[in-house]
Amino acid sequence: MKQTTYKDAGVDIAKGEESISGLKESIHSTFTPNVLSNVGAFGGLFELNTQEYKQPVLVSSTDGVGTKLKIAILANRHSTVGQDLVNHCVNDIAVMGAKPLFFLDYFATAALDSSVFTQVINGFAKACREAKIALIGGETAEMPGFYQVGDYDMSGTIVGIVEKSQILSGSEIQKGDILVGIQSNGLHTNGYSLARKVLLEQYSVDQHIEALGKSLADELLRVHKNYFNVIQAIIPFHVKGFSHITGGGIIGNTKRLLKNGLNLKVNWNSWDSQPIFSLIQKLGNVPDDDMRRAFNLGIGLVAVLPPLDVDNVLDHLKSIGEKAWVIGEVV
Amino acid sequence: MKQTTYKDAGVDIAKGEESISGLKESIHSTFTPNVLSNVGAFGGLFELNTQEYKQPVLVSSTDGVGTKLKIAILANRHSTVGQDLVNHCVNDIAVMGAKPLFFLDYFATAALDSSVFTQVINGFAKACREAKIALIGGETAEMPGFYQVGDYDMSGTIVGIVEKSQILSGSEIQKGDILVGIQSNGLHTNGYSLARKVLLEQYSVDQHIEALGKSLADELLRVHKNYFNVIQAIIPFHVKGFSHITGGGIIGNTKRLLKNGLNLKVNWNSWDSQPIFSLIQKLGNVPDDDMRRAFNLGIGLVAVLPPLDVDNVLDHLKSIGEKAWVIGEVV
Repeated sequence: MKQTTYKDAGVDIAKGEESISGLKESIHSTFTPNVLSNVGAFGGLFELNTQEYKQPVLVSSTDGVGTKLKIAILANRHSTVGQDLVNHCVNDIAVMGAKPLFFLDYFATAALDSSVFTQVINGFAKACREAKIALIGGETAEMPGFYQVGDYDMSGTIVGIVEKSQILSGSEIQKGDILVGIQSNGLHTNGYSLARKVLLEQYSVDQHIEALGKSLADELLRVHKNYFNVIQAIIPFHVKGFSHITGGGIIGNTKRLLKNGLNLKVNWNSWDSQPIFSLIQKLGNVPDDDMRRAFNLGIGLVAVLPPLDVDNVLDHLKSIGEKAWVIGEVV
Repeated sequence: MKQTTYKDAGVDIAKGEESISGLKESIHSTFTPNVLSNVGAFGGLFELNTQEYKQPVLVSSTDGVGTKLKIAILANRHSTVGQDLVNHCVNDIAVMGAKPLFFLDYFATAALDSSVFTQVINGFAKACREAKIALIGGETAEMPGFYQVGDYDMSGTIVGIVEKSQILSGSEIQKGDILVGIQSNGLHTNGYSLARKVLLEQYSVDQHIEALGKSLADELLRVHKNYFNVIQAIIPFHVKGFSHITGGGIIGNTKRLLKNGLNLKVNWNSWDSQPIFSLIQKLGNVPDDDMRRAFNLGIGLVAVLPPLDVDNVLDHLKSIGEKAWVIGEVV
């Protein structure tokens, strides 16, 4: 009678362990002094410096990079999507005033491709190193029958910390406060299903596109920007709340900060447009409303602050090399 | 010219927001007094009681449920897989001595099916409530083109806490220590690719199987057992280390606790077998080695302790209704 082995069922435990083992050095390079564990323990161990905080609050977020992965897969370039995910997660907790501590990843595919996997994990490690976040754990799942060969999905979870009294909740935002928008680095990680539908009908990912001055893959794989330093730099200028512009767009995300009765007025032409957005809108004849819900449209972070502080913030942002504009107000 | 909307591209933001909104009550029911945030903030906020700890260490783990999902999908029963994932994650940090604090989920699918999604999230919430863990955040991704219609994947991340001096690392394990195995509730979440390959060639998921005394789905969807209370109950009996038996099996997981030079001797016939494992082995003619790496084989948790404490631990486990056996030793 024919034998059925675990490998026959599509799961190669030895290969999985080997792939992870080869990445130990890269993962260890992210370890801050607070990390107690080694790769391979059941859970990641992170010692808290509680003396630094009177009332420490942990801030956490889970996210994915959505169908941006499809671009990476089509272009066979997997070194940036891990950075996208780490930076996305960092921003989600940084907007609440938190400092990131550690990150865990989930990577799922039909059958592990060592080269792809290594690129992805090295991407996580690079972004974690740059942001001084420990890549403290993760799960790699081989799920034959769930993913098409060559496809993969991933998610990440970040945990950070903030002093309770320093949480930026947006609760003090009031009518007349100003929205300062800070430039994004392209699409970041949102709107890719729409972008793909429109663009891949016309172009291949490797095609040079005149209007962009680069290949489609180069444009669409631009790395999600990490705003942690920007946020920390301008918190002292009386910023009442930050919004990270992801799915839902400028309005959908910034609205989360507002109390009932308040609304947002955005001047949609008040910042430098990026050619990728007009290209998508023109090619797909996409309604304005859909563009505004699907994409960041060139603004990756919004700071809400009193009118009196706006000039100082804009000056400071300029001094640290950030492009920013007044893009609207609270009404 | 035909318009392309975000919905045309397969992403229905309004529907996604509606689905989440209907689950608010279920999610809120998990909130412990430490939770500061509401659903909808950028990150989940969890206030730490640092007075309880001299040197608090955060212990975290990310996991998935693998292709057990395929059984849930085939049987169209989605209320248990969320519980599987929470309990799996709890065990991974509980074996290190940690108490779970909060959990975040990731759910990805081609196009959100409200009924499926509601069942899954309610499963997370149920297990979190039972274990007093706050379901503090999550991400729901619609990824058209990545998943087949009806399929979904998920991952979860747990964060817990332990006093530094109380971490169970297994560092004191020595030759002669005894392995006590505690009964699993079926396959838990491992070996499903092999189980599916063997079983679904012969049976449909809804078929009643004589050898199991129940339908295949009923057997394969048994909920991954939460061992937190068991672990806490027997820690005082000088347990030197616990191993949560997942992918890699009894040896693969318990070996992680051992220093170089030590090894494990398992008596594979020393505990009550569960009919599902012999059925798979017989039907698939699966080699012993593959069975032992793919499955927990009826043992979901292993405690390593000195020979002198074994009788007390077995008595205590019996008194709290747990089936346990001496299954091997450290050599």
